[in-house]
Amino acid sequence: MTIQRFFSDNAAPVHPQVMEALAAANAVDTAYDGDALSARLDSAFSDLFGKPVEAMWVATGTAANSIALAAHVRPWQAVLCHEEAHIEVDECGAPALFNGGAKLMLLPGAGAKIDAATIDARMGAIRKDVHQVQPAAISITNASEYGLAWTPDEVATVGECARRHGLALHMDGARFANAVAHVGCTPADVTWRAGVDVLSFGCVKNGGMNAEALVFFNGMPAGVKEMRKRSGHLQSKGRYLAAQILAMIEGGLWLDNARSANRAAAIIAQAAGERLLHPVEANEIFLRLTAEEAATLRAAGFDFYDWGEGAARLVTSWQHAVGDVQPLADAIRAL
Amino acid sequence: MTIQRFFSDNAAPVHPQVMEALAAANAVDTAYDGDALSARLDSAFSDLFGKPVEAMWVATGTAANSIALAAHVRPWQAVLCHEEAHIEVDECGAPALFNGGAKLMLLPGAGAKIDAATIDARMGAIRKDVHQVQPAAISITNASEYGLAWTPDEVATVGECARRHGLALHMDGARFANAVAHVGCTPADVTWRAGVDVLSFGCVKNGGMNAEALVFFNGMPAGVKEMRKRSGHLQSKGRYLAAQILAMIEGGLWLDNARSANRAAAIIAQAAGERLLHPVEANEIFLRLTAEEAATLRAAGFDFYDWGEGAARLVTSWQHAVGDVQPLADAIRAL
Amino acid sequence: MTIQRFFSDNAAPVHPQVMEALAAANAVDTAYDGDALSARLDSAFSDLFGKPVEAMWVATGTAANSIALAAHVRPWQAVLCHEEAHIEVDECGAPALFNGGAKLMLLPGAGAKIDAATIDARMGAIRKDVHQVQPAAISITNASEYGLAWTPDEVATVGECARRHGLALHMDGARFANAVAHVGCTPADVTWRAGVDVLSFGCVKNGGMNAEALVFFNGMPAGVKEMRKRSGHLQSKGRYLAAQILAMIEGGLWLDNARSANRAAAIIAQAAGERLLHPVEANEIFLRLTAEEAATLRAAGFDFYDWGEGAARLVTSWQHAVGDVQPLADAIRAL
Amino acid sequence: MTIQRFFSDNAAPVHPQVMEALAAANAVDTAYDGDALSARLDSAFSDLFGKPVEAMWVATGTAANSIALAAHVRPWQAVLCHEEAHIEVDECGAPALFNGGAKLMLLPGAGAKIDAATIDARMGAIRKDVHQVQPAAISITNASEYGLAWTPDEVATVGECARRHGLALHMDGARFANAVAHVGCTPADVTWRAGVDVLSFGCVKNGGMNAEALVFFNGMPAGVKEMRKRSGHLQSKGRYLAAQILAMIEGGLWLDNARSANRAAAIIAQAAGERLLHPVEANEIFLRLTAEEAATLRAAGFDFYDWGEGAARLVTSWQHAVGDVQPLADAIRAL
Repeated sequence: MTIQRFFSDNAAPVHPQVMEALAAANAVDTAYDGDALSARLDSAFSDLFGKPVEAMWVATGTAANSIALAAHVRPWQAVLCHEEAHIEVDECGAPALFNGGAKLMLLPGAGAKIDAATIDARMGAIRKDVHQVQPAAISITNASEYGLAWTPDEVATVGECARRHGLALHMDGARFANAVAHVGCTPADVTWRAGVDVLSFGCVKNGGMNAEALVFFNGMPAGVKEMRKRSGHLQSKGRYLAAQILAMIEGGLWLDNARSANRAAAIIAQAAGERLLHPVEANEIFLRLTAEEAATLRAAGFDFYDWGEGAARLVTSWQHAVGDVQPLADAIRAL
Repeated sequence: MTIQRFFSDNAAPVHPQVMEALAAANAVDTAYDGDALSARLDSAFSDLFGKPVEAMWVATGTAANSIALAAHVRPWQAVLCHEEAHIEVDECGAPALFNGGAKLMLLPGAGAKIDAATIDARMGAIRKDVHQVQPAAISITNASEYGLAWTPDEVATVGECARRHGLALHMDGARFANAVAHVGCTPADVTWRAGVDVLSFGCVKNGGMNAEALVFFNGMPAGVKEMRKRSGHLQSKGRYLAAQILAMIEGGLWLDNARSANRAAAIIAQAAGERLLHPVEANEIFLRLTAEEAATLRAAGFDFYDWGEGAARLVTSWQHAVGDVQPLADAIRAL
Repeated sequence: MTIQRFFSDNAAPVHPQVMEALAAANAVDTAYDGDALSARLDSAFSDLFGKPVEAMWVATGTAANSIALAAHVRPWQAVLCHEEAHIEVDECGAPALFNGGAKLMLLPGAGAKIDAATIDARMGAIRKDVHQVQPAAISITNASEYGLAWTPDEVATVGECARRHGLALHMDGARFANAVAHVGCTPADVTWRAGVDVLSFGCVKNGGMNAEALVFFNGMPAGVKEMRKRSGHLQSKGRYLAAQILAMIEGGLWLDNARSANRAAAIIAQAAGERLLHPVEANEIFLRLTAEEAATLRAAGFDFYDWGEGAARLVTSWQHAVGDVQPLADAIRAL
Repeated sequence: MTIQRFFSDNAAPVHPQVMEALAAANAVDTAYDGDALSARLDSAFSDLFGKPVEAMWVATGTAANSIALAAHVRPWQAVLCHEEAHIEVDECGAPALFNGGAKLMLLPGAGAKIDAATIDARMGAIRKDVHQVQPAAISITNASEYGLAWTPDEVATVGECARRHGLALHMDGARFANAVAHVGCTPADVTWRAGVDVLSFGCVKNGGMNAEALVFFNGMPAGVKEMRKRSGHLQSKGRYLAAQILAMIEGGLWLDNARSANRAAAIIAQAAGERLLHPVEANEIFLRLTAEEAATLRAAGFDFYDWGEGAARLVTSWQHAVGDVQPLADAIRAL
């Protein structure tokens, strides 16, 4: 019996078009980011976002997030984020390495989203003196850690709040494509038009191999390129990272892949019905599942992560066609 | 006219066998380093080095060097290295990011090598108190920044010196393959048998895409895996890095490629004759060249880096067959 | 009208015996901590704690706490502490500077104390992998941020919990003297006998000028002296810090001063009665106070900090005799 | 026999006027730097330097230097300084702790001074790319590590060089008073008029107890106060530091003390004659002295540091009257 794995989109294969792009890039060129492909990133992302932006490749989302935050926060300052944000719970403290020890200040919020009222309350509770750490940025995740997509209006509310307090706004977009595919907005609407300063634009979970993009909407702050080099993230054959990213965005593959993953997730979500712990708006399904039920599914050839007691997380990816997940949906319904 | 580029092996294409290995790895697997290929690294390197070792992939040589050093040096300590070492002059201060600000203490030495006498002298000049920074490691580069290969005996002398002073010994092997190919020793002889504790085993310059290996000969110190994650270097699709490394070492490609590059360099070196600034023992040629002569070569279709005034650096790579570089050799002879 | 200030023991004068000790130390001696007074610290604290300990002066509690934690925690690890701990809310992120960015993981707890059950629960919720930050130490504050004294049994419960999880236990004793004076235990009972590894022993709030002691009960970890120097805390005329500390502990002044402050606080507490937000066990009084009532007290010549809305904090110090605070107590009663 | 100690001005007693100032400050006041004495620092230093400046106390020269440099240098940048500068050889790497790992780039120079030509040459040798660390500041020491005083013209040459390259200029003035006393210039002439941006104004070696001043001539950069707090250097009873500094500068004690020390050094220097390794321009005497001669002096009751083989360093301080050092001068002459 083949096991169908729904652990993470992190484990999915690389999309064939990305593999082809890598093959096509396989010639001599200038080292680091002096090559022709890397040079195309700014304009490709400017097209995608409908305004002049500056973009840069790095190998991982953790590096993208950390550099984005370090560009806006000094060591004695802080980043406001959700208490279950990836930067807090899944990056081994990476942001603090890159920014010299700045604090992550944790906020609650349903579905792993934070809102302006919570931010305002927290800002109001901080004395403006040198004893207390002062926030300098907000980081939100889209889609959120629980697979919820942000609407442009939701982001704009946080964006205005950020501006009011003089804070930069970062969006961790590890699953940005899935979120945009769900909401149906333009990439611009949910980012710079809503006040986002910098976006970690995810590719790896969405069919890439090892390239993510960092997109600065209001200019690249001083030191960003140095931080990339200094953290060992300036690859000498950077053209292979640029190639992956261009393959994703220049022809719309990023949205196509996200739509596939979302559709597959929707099929499973429909089957899960009342079991769902969160609305399924991207490619993650959190559902109630007893140990016995989990065992039943696993015995039927489906594997996934337990999510605490009595719950499970399933993640679909670009490679799942609707038909692929029907057996799982049926199995869930049959529980 | 096609320009033949001798800027850097950093800019060479990826070797076809590595590309094939990437294609072969393109299936679902466990994320991060839980996959079957990553799991094979320890044994593959143990075979290569003739003793049980622990190995780990990272994307760049800068990351490999920085993690290796941070594993052995605390923030208030220092690393002894050559004043022209890559970690000092070409990594934007990366070692200090990873290890919390430890100092690089710079030593002179012909051909960018350092020797035991120089190390002893420096160690003797440091007061053993809390005011002066105390070294905890030595880092050497093989092949050196000027393309010189270390013999096992040379390394052993530094290794004994390291042991005498209680220092760890790191080897930056960005061009390790070229050095071993030149000397004709076993990889073991010039590393752990000579006192090396940890090796940055280079693949990218030698035909890889974006994977280097870090090889620990005396166990992996606590915190290494955490450092990799915390610096954003734990890739979720790590199997594609493992695949590259295995493609290089399991069938001997690493040595084959290095031999090709070395042979090509030797052809050029022979033509350069009296012009050579350093013996050519790997794949780098440093030679005297007036501005006029450089212009002549460039007009003939060969490009390369100037190396200060009146000198140039040329680097060959795995892709250069002997015939490929003959025209350049002829052009140099004709100057 | 003279204003009586109950803002903080931080603002109290230096006790006359400490001033005399400074005058007595005013002669030529060896620089840094090579002097005769600094040399006496280990034995003086060993006497105080009834076992051989190693002790060291630093100028501030923030430095003491930060060095204590950095000695036990690596940059990728964490310290468990109360969400209102001084190290979290009043030190501008100092612990992260000293330890390279380790996280403070915040726990709830009544009266700013944390208990074993909360720690166990938090430890149980952390996956043991490189993605999640792993705690390496616990920090508790005695007296707590709300002026509660820990009993030896309470500390022992946390101490056992620390041992169970392999965590070091630090006690921030900025008001250690007040806590011990209240409980009536020996200093040993509430520290090393209960599992404390390292104590920040406060002097400044208790009549010192600018010297605190760091006391290691299980040996001083490697690097502590280097951290002190490297953070600019190794004073060249360190004998004046040693003199202050010895003046406090060799003749029992530390307890006498704490008792004075505690007695004064008790007088006010008795007057406050039902207004108290926390039991008064040291020298801090937190009480309900409307804006109008606060204005009345201020008009009568007493000043203090507001503590959010509808509450206030008053702090007594060594210099307050019982008679000194009677007028304030009367004024509170009269509200 | 009483031993006369010429090890370091670091070990001298505190001047009686400073002790009196401490006693005078011994009353209740606002904590941290909210007190009346701390508030006077800006105007006192503005008077001293003949222009509006911002000043701040810290406990040690290492803290002063480190904060000054961290205010002008980002982690991926560098400070140019002499290879024997105190910040390089005697501070256990403190600058790198405060600034997140920025590099000290070491320059040669007679008498531990650096000059514009050396700086220009070094700046010229650095490629302007992200691989190489770019300097952002220069640090000079006045008096230098070998006791040489800088003239206003000498500083101005470096100041112009700094401006040319866009670098900040820091002066480590641990013995600033001795240097100014020797040259006879105004404090302004040798600092801001010559291009110095920030000065570590030393008090401890010159009769203080544990307070140094940091003087910013062109405004205090953002983050300086936070850095002081975050490094544990914001003392709660800061008024005792302000008191020391004001006692030194408001009545001219700083210059009187320096003149005493310089005069005493001159007497010894005259006796040393041909033995001198450096001109004696402040209060340090470096002289040739065989092991036998050193033993003779020590047998006669004078002690001091050996300075490598065949040399010694003697330091005088404010407490040495001319008559006090005559016996030593005679003993040197008699060798």
